[in-house]
Amino acid sequence: MVESELYPLLSQSGFQIPPFRRFALNEPIELDFYPVALKVESPKIVHKSDVGGVSISLSTRETAEAARDQMIRRIGEHNIVLDSQDGFIATAMIQGEELFAGVVDDPIFGQIILFGKGGVLLELYRDVCYIDIHAGEAEILRAIRTTKISKLFEGFRGSQPMMGKIVEFIQTLQRFIKSNPNIRECDLNPVIFNPKGLHVVDARIDYHTALTGGTPAKRIRNNFFDNRCVAVIGASNDPNKVGYAIAHNALSFKGKLFLVNAKGGTFEDHHLYCSLNDIHETIDTAVITIPSCHVIETIEALIPMGVKNIIIVSAGFKEIGDTRSEERLSELAQQHNLNIIGPNCLGYYESTQSLNLTFGSPVIKKGSLALIAQSGAVLSSLMDKATQEGIGFSHILSAGNMADMGFADIITMLSADPECHAISLYAEGIQDGKAFLEALRLCSKPIRVYKAGKSPQARKAAFSHTGNLSGDYPMFRGLLESVGVKMVDSIEALLYARNFENIAVITNAGGPGTIITDVIIERASKLYTLREDDIKALDAILPANWSRNNPIDIIGDARSERFEAALRCVDAMEGVDLIYLLITPQMMTDTLNIVRLLDRPWNKPVFPILLGGAMMSEALLFLREHSKPCFTTLHEAGAFL
Amino acid sequence: MVESELYPLLSQSGFQIPPFRRFALNEPIELDFYPVALKVESPKIVHKSDVGGVSISLSTRETAEAARDQMIRRIGEHNIVLDSQDGFIATAMIQGEELFAGVVDDPIFGQIILFGKGGVLLELYRDVCYIDIHAGEAEILRAIRTTKISKLFEGFRGSQPMMGKIVEFIQTLQRFIKSNPNIRECDLNPVIFNPKGLHVVDARIDYHTALTGGTPAKRIRNNFFDNRCVAVIGASNDPNKVGYAIAHNALSFKGKLFLVNAKGGTFEDHHLYCSLNDIHETIDTAVITIPSCHVIETIEALIPMGVKNIIIVSAGFKEIGDTRSEERLSELAQQHNLNIIGPNCLGYYESTQSLNLTFGSPVIKKGSLALIAQSGAVLSSLMDKATQEGIGFSHILSAGNMADMGFADIITMLSADPECHAISLYAEGIQDGKAFLEALRLCSKPIRVYKAGKSPQARKAAFSHTGNLSGDYPMFRGLLESVGVKMVDSIEALLYARNFENIAVITNAGGPGTIITDVIIERASKLYTLREDDIKALDAILPANWSRNNPIDIIGDARSERFEAALRCVDAMEGVDLIYLLITPQMMTDTLNIVRLLDRPWNKPVFPILLGGAMMSEALLFLREHSKPCFTTLHEAGAFL
Repeated sequence: MVESELYPLLSQSGFQIPPFRRFALNEPIELDFYPVALKVESPKIVHKSDVGGVSISLSTRETAEAARDQMIRRIGEHNIVLDSQDGFIATAMIQGEELFAGVVDDPIFGQIILFGKGGVLLELYRDVCYIDIHAGEAEILRAIRTTKISKLFEGFRGSQPMMGKIVEFIQTLQRFIKSNPNIRECDLNPVIFNPKGLHVVDARIDYHTALTGGTPAKRIRNNFFDNRCVAVIGASNDPNKVGYAIAHNALSFKGKLFLVNAKGGTFEDHHLYCSLNDIHETIDTAVITIPSCHVIETIEALIPMGVKNIIIVSAGFKEIGDTRSEERLSELAQQHNLNIIGPNCLGYYESTQSLNLTFGSPVIKKGSLALIAQSGAVLSSLMDKATQEGIGFSHILSAGNMADMGFADIITMLSADPECHAISLYAEGIQDGKAFLEALRLCSKPIRVYKAGKSPQARKAAFSHTGNLSGDYPMFRGLLESVGVKMVDSIEALLYARNFENIAVITNAGGPGTIITDVIIERASKLYTLREDDIKALDAILPANWSRNNPIDIIGDARSERFEAALRCVDAMEGVDLIYLLITPQMMTDTLNIVRLLDRPWNKPVFPILLGGAMMSEALLFLREHSKPCFTTLHEAGAFL
Repeated sequence: MVESELYPLLSQSGFQIPPFRRFALNEPIELDFYPVALKVESPKIVHKSDVGGVSISLSTRETAEAARDQMIRRIGEHNIVLDSQDGFIATAMIQGEELFAGVVDDPIFGQIILFGKGGVLLELYRDVCYIDIHAGEAEILRAIRTTKISKLFEGFRGSQPMMGKIVEFIQTLQRFIKSNPNIRECDLNPVIFNPKGLHVVDARIDYHTALTGGTPAKRIRNNFFDNRCVAVIGASNDPNKVGYAIAHNALSFKGKLFLVNAKGGTFEDHHLYCSLNDIHETIDTAVITIPSCHVIETIEALIPMGVKNIIIVSAGFKEIGDTRSEERLSELAQQHNLNIIGPNCLGYYESTQSLNLTFGSPVIKKGSLALIAQSGAVLSSLMDKATQEGIGFSHILSAGNMADMGFADIITMLSADPECHAISLYAEGIQDGKAFLEALRLCSKPIRVYKAGKSPQARKAAFSHTGNLSGDYPMFRGLLESVGVKMVDSIEALLYARNFENIAVITNAGGPGTIITDVIIERASKLYTLREDDIKALDAILPANWSRNNPIDIIGDARSERFEAALRCVDAMEGVDLIYLLITPQMMTDTLNIVRLLDRPWNKPVFPILLGGAMMSEALLFLREHSKPCFTTLHEAGAFL
């Protein structure tokens, strides 16, 4: 499409475009909107600049016509002869900041808007944000504000605030794309921003040759968390087998449990059913740990038994190239409205009925955090760490290959579950990005996400072990942040659900106090500001040379008594929501006694940071044995904030 | 200075300026370089734009004169009457990318050049670099290349490479500043960059009203590391006193040691001298741990005894507000050419003579890394960690308040010492930035620096405990990186000197393998690429479904035998310079046996990463007991790269 065809299309779609007029080859260039840019329009020419077909800042009819004649000569030097179907378009020159707006059709997220600084600096600064075509106003604003150029829209250096105009522009673009679903790529570059608004001065649109099929109708799923009667298929007495661990962990289930193994016999005093045929009850939920070749026939046998939920722990599907079986799983799920988790996963845990169908930690503390992970190893590491630190869960879900239930389905179900107060998700590759975004958008609980596969090298590694596409990280991060997700930079941060706002640090050392201050500020958390009466209270119990500032430096010779007095005092401060006890090995430090303080009840969470090595090991051991969290580096201590 | 005076000054100094001419108020504006910008020049007007005194893109005499008349009217509306000493300057309009070049007189680093993207985006993107006025070409280039805009200079999108012109411009600016040492601030903004070079089109220069005194002549210091006869002043039998720890640690010294305590008696079978008067030998080095009020008289007593080096451990100087005593220390050092370390420090260690004058770890392993720290607590934590992980040192220096010897002096001495192969520095606030830069520039050993006090809140904390200014972090980081220093983001990274280039990961889990890949790539390290014969060698010992890629995923059921085989194989690969053993708790994992492999000798460094919690504790304990490094999170594992 040439510019003189594009401009009317853009204008009809609600975009502001500059005044323009098309001229035949030798038509007099008479206009009432100088200065103009003059560009050749010819189907024979793709890249106008390359053949000298663009001329700018033309202020009069004479200069414009002289420029046109010169362009015709230059184009001729490239052996292109213009004829009667060719012409020139004159466009009013508009001054302002060059922005960029574009649309890509991402393999994961579908049609997504990119918006930010344009021109040559687009590539240099990559100061762009990502906006879903279904994003509402708040989401659009959140996205735009992640760009640096957005300061210009907020009324930078006394200029008029124009954020409203920017949002309107994005909404116009959203409407434009929705009414043109076959757009594959679209670049509005540059869009000129000035006090009169946004002006699309150049555009390029690519269409799909064929429209892809519509999205499948959304299934109304059964509630996955409703499990009364559970079968473990592949329960084994061999402690080296996954079927052993799962059967063993499942014994704590408060509902009805059936263990199945073709060989029969018993498992820790429980009957082992040789076959599903021997069970004459409705099975809500089945976990399958048998070899992959028998999985589909087993599911087919379970369907008549009323099964609703199936967790396939068995590996050997898409990740080793067997996409056929995985497609069959998906078909079965669709046809019989099954919720299938996996295959190739670590299992499932749910706190209300104490249902542990994982082959991870046998003892899981009950809590209110739901943890979802796409990697079994990441999940088992986090479960092990949680056990050590006394962290509990409402649900644990190992997503595996996601043949049926994806993150969107899982999050939608967790959104509605009253036991779950917060959700943490470890993701590598995802499938239906639009559905995922919609689920996140509708979820009102705090959500944390760690995304692996930021670098191309890591994406390669991720693909090779889950078979899922990993996608572009900045887009993933940007889109998730704009729907209110907190993206975290370490997997350990997934174990924490709460965002702390006002942190107090009690320390026996100034240097590390300075460093933790940087760490806290970097993560956009706040150091609590001591009030007059806080200082008075601390003055009463601390030596005269304490820092009188937060970090509360209680001086290098502090022993546990002084730590205790300071901790009591800070624990009583209303505004504080987290206390770090930052301990360094100094001459007088009785670290073990200091960490013993943590075994008492405190109003606020108190997290110890033990800097050092050998001199801290006894205290570290104490904390581990008492299932208390503990950090050994300052950066680790800050990573979950 | 008005523009028509500034332009000749800039032009004489070697800068390219646009054609310009000054006109009296009503002089005809006849020129041969249209289009021009026209600006009023009057001592009555500071901000021209605010009174409508600027008009741009004037293409003819007529438009220029019309614009001038309109400006006179607009200025009149601000109640400013122009007279015969006022006029207008016409400047040729130059098209191109707007850059910024400026000079600040920083309280720490002195006159420093800022260079980068200019115009309104200067503030939004802060895409600038920092260049010392003494920087050579390589240093200038290193600095410029940290900016994103520098891609334009390298021949971006097929444009002409212009980096040579940019460096010449910076060198012109360096000469300009050196010949104008009284410049307090200078903004060349914008500098227009186009294929014809750089054009300074606007400038503002502020001068100091009085020139500050020249820098003091550089002292030629004695070698601090030459210690044959050492005195510990304040040796104490009270184990709660610093004087006990230092005297105890000093006993391993291979030279002559005198322990001094006014009370006399003995210390662990060594004679305690009551007074310096009782010692009739030359004392090279004295460490002082007595109360601060006696420190100066003690130094005065040591001077006639030939003392060269003094380490003042005692606190109670600048950090509690006593600047007078600290100035006296500096005077004594100057007058008698003493090397004074401290006051308010943890002491000093040197490996050649096994001289441990610290009150940190009593046992320090001999190595080739020199560790300097401004915080005693950071130093003692790192020493404790080093002991645990088997890391050795050539020197350890606690800088304290730096009354005499600063980082520049210490680095200069370490540069010349053959025992030290690499230097790590923890800095909070520094003093003479120019001398510091020069010392770093001249040092050919690898240097790592961690700088605390990035945020204003942390700078406040740092100042309150050392009394030193902390300065602007981006400038600090930029200047140090341009002299080749590696800035690290965690204090633990200071314990590592070597930069690893080609890393191999052996793991039993794909997900964590993906994450560590991101961590490695993020730190600009490389994952080793497996060659054909590497893959063949691994094929021979690994199950068929191993990843055939680095990270080398040896599959979840890997036990120590498979880890050992893989480790042997990778240890023999020539290109690999570091191996991570990434272990997650899976059903079959015999973690303790796996980490036992690390107690054998390997060609390459092998670092285990134990992800998880309770299930890893036994293995962690083994590594601690065998003084092996060990990481428990992926981000900690990558932090030192």
